[in-house]
Amino acid sequence: MTRNFNFSAGPAMLPTAVIERAREEMLDWNGSGMSVMEMSHRGKEFVSIAEKAEADLREILTIPQNYKVLFLQGGASSQFAMIPLNLLKDKKKADYINTGMWSKKAIAEAKRFCEVSLAGDTSENNFTTVPDQRSLVLDPDAAYVHYTPNETIGGVEFDYVPETGDIPLVADMSSDILSRPIDVSKFGLIYAGAQKNIGPSGLTIVIIREDLIGNPADGIPTMFNYATHADAGSMYNTPPTYNWYVAGLVFEWIKDQGGLSAMAEINRRKAEKLYTAIDNSGFYANPVAENARSWMNIPFTLADPGMDAEFLSGATQRGLLTLKGHRSVGGMRASIYNAMPEEGVDTLISYMQEFEQKNG
Amino acid sequence: MTRNFNFSAGPAMLPTAVIERAREEMLDWNGSGMSVMEMSHRGKEFVSIAEKAEADLREILTIPQNYKVLFLQGGASSQFAMIPLNLLKDKKKADYINTGMWSKKAIAEAKRFCEVSLAGDTSENNFTTVPDQRSLVLDPDAAYVHYTPNETIGGVEFDYVPETGDIPLVADMSSDILSRPIDVSKFGLIYAGAQKNIGPSGLTIVIIREDLIGNPADGIPTMFNYATHADAGSMYNTPPTYNWYVAGLVFEWIKDQGGLSAMAEINRRKAEKLYTAIDNSGFYANPVAENARSWMNIPFTLADPGMDAEFLSGATQRGLLTLKGHRSVGGMRASIYNAMPEEGVDTLISYMQEFEQKNG
Repeated sequence: MTRNFNFSAGPAMLPTAVIERAREEMLDWNGSGMSVMEMSHRGKEFVSIAEKAEADLREILTIPQNYKVLFLQGGASSQFAMIPLNLLKDKKKADYINTGMWSKKAIAEAKRFCEVSLAGDTSENNFTTVPDQRSLVLDPDAAYVHYTPNETIGGVEFDYVPETGDIPLVADMSSDILSRPIDVSKFGLIYAGAQKNIGPSGLTIVIIREDLIGNPADGIPTMFNYATHADAGSMYNTPPTYNWYVAGLVFEWIKDQGGLSAMAEINRRKAEKLYTAIDNSGFYANPVAENARSWMNIPFTLADPGMDAEFLSGATQRGLLTLKGHRSVGGMRASIYNAMPEEGVDTLISYMQEFEQKNG
Repeated sequence: MTRNFNFSAGPAMLPTAVIERAREEMLDWNGSGMSVMEMSHRGKEFVSIAEKAEADLREILTIPQNYKVLFLQGGASSQFAMIPLNLLKDKKKADYINTGMWSKKAIAEAKRFCEVSLAGDTSENNFTTVPDQRSLVLDPDAAYVHYTPNETIGGVEFDYVPETGDIPLVADMSSDILSRPIDVSKFGLIYAGAQKNIGPSGLTIVIIREDLIGNPADGIPTMFNYATHADAGSMYNTPPTYNWYVAGLVFEWIKDQGGLSAMAEINRRKAEKLYTAIDNSGFYANPVAENARSWMNIPFTLADPGMDAEFLSGATQRGLLTLKGHRSVGGMRASIYNAMPEEGVDTLISYMQEFEQKNG
């Protein structure tokens, strides 16, 4: 059995320790005689798994008491609609910061339900920067301000949390949640698809301040009302139990690593190594402004795009998988979430240097 | 390691062969060096898994070419809204047959979006029968007719497929899909949460006739439009990949058992054994009319409800788990889906007889 280094943007690598534990417990969880997949979501075994996962996540992120943690289905794409449908209340407008592909998707869906003002927009520089705080144009009549702290495709990450005063800040943290400590109290709502830094796809985490729950738009589907899930402890209907369980194993693993301060230190080191290798090469390039470079998703191009196929083929031979960049950007993309070992980044850098020496 | 017999209504037992295979492939699927959980949903490995699962399901159910198979999230509870939001088109009414708790939930959600006529209703006899074809009152202006072929809580199952003429028939098959052959062409739309007869929770299968796709109500969330998923091969956003994979293992297992005719024969035998044991006992009772008795969910009561706790405790000691009935019905419920081995039913019957001899 070989475990390769998989640079997929998501679904993505999980810690080997987590997958090994899932394997060990697969047929018989904790002497219950059942796989976690087979447990009633209302039975004491699964309830204990679910509660521990939530408690660990609350501990890791220091989530204040006045926030609910919801374990939902439907991905960030469902949140793109749920957010305006629940947070607009009697308002008609929302502010969005546009920093790339995922911001744009959130904006397109929001426009189905409200007027969208762009509080910031970096399309003019092809999404290679983040707008600074002073440049943000905040509409006092906006129901909320939405932004994407890390753009998975462009590899652009905010190096600060926007200040929005009394207007709730909403963040799509799908690709950088749990990568470093954050101050949850600065946010009204944080959401994240699980498949990058949390666990298997099919689970979406929503962390929402309680006062934002309970005023949905008229006539929305019951499943799109946050109150439905908040009131039922995320068990209004059958939740994605196995996904929730694996997420819980990841939360335990993060605690074992020393929590988010430790993760941040490792993530910073992994990213700095790779950016340094790119910048020093003269062969590879990353277009993102230094202060906006993502720790999680690092796109880079080769001096000659004609060599992309050869680069990818050699990478695959060395067990460095899924490095092809998004079609909208081209080149390569190395997604190095929490579960990517530092050894994976080192192996990639060695390969890049070797490839450059041969072909540069 | 002990594998118990778990009579949970869902999430429920999976075939041991499926769980063993999932365990074997956990760290390294097919020499890919990745767990299925870690694979990009757009990579060739996962695409091959997804396509095989769909092809096997199409083969098992003989799904005609003019039907799409969708692998979605959100459970039957999301379908309760998606169905009226997509199928009403220019109509304002839908017919629903009310045979129990899950029918009622579907009806309550539909009423948020349209006028509901009851084409049949067995509430008067406390949901212990199914209405026969002649008694159904079909509204010619209804956009569709919705029914619940098997009621998980009441243990009531239709022994026929309602004829609805040109009006599309919609079925919540969450708890009896894949339990016997069906003629898919009689249905406009079939939906099922995975967690009973398909796989882990967090996956919802929708089988929809193509002409019913593409006329959603104005202003619905993009994720609630069947066309969104049909046009993208269920990959508009990241699907629940691991759940999809395990469902595929279950489909392979069903083929190995000899397909749905073979499953039906086993399911009929298992159910008949248990009903016979109940009826012959004089101590246990099931209230459902003979022609409406479910093969999948068999509720039964003890002559003295004061003995319920003792019955359950003895059952658990013998590895017969999750037999407690739904709180709305009381007593016991044995859910005996495809994955419950005949040996599990035999063991339950032996225990019931032993308990009766001691306490009857």
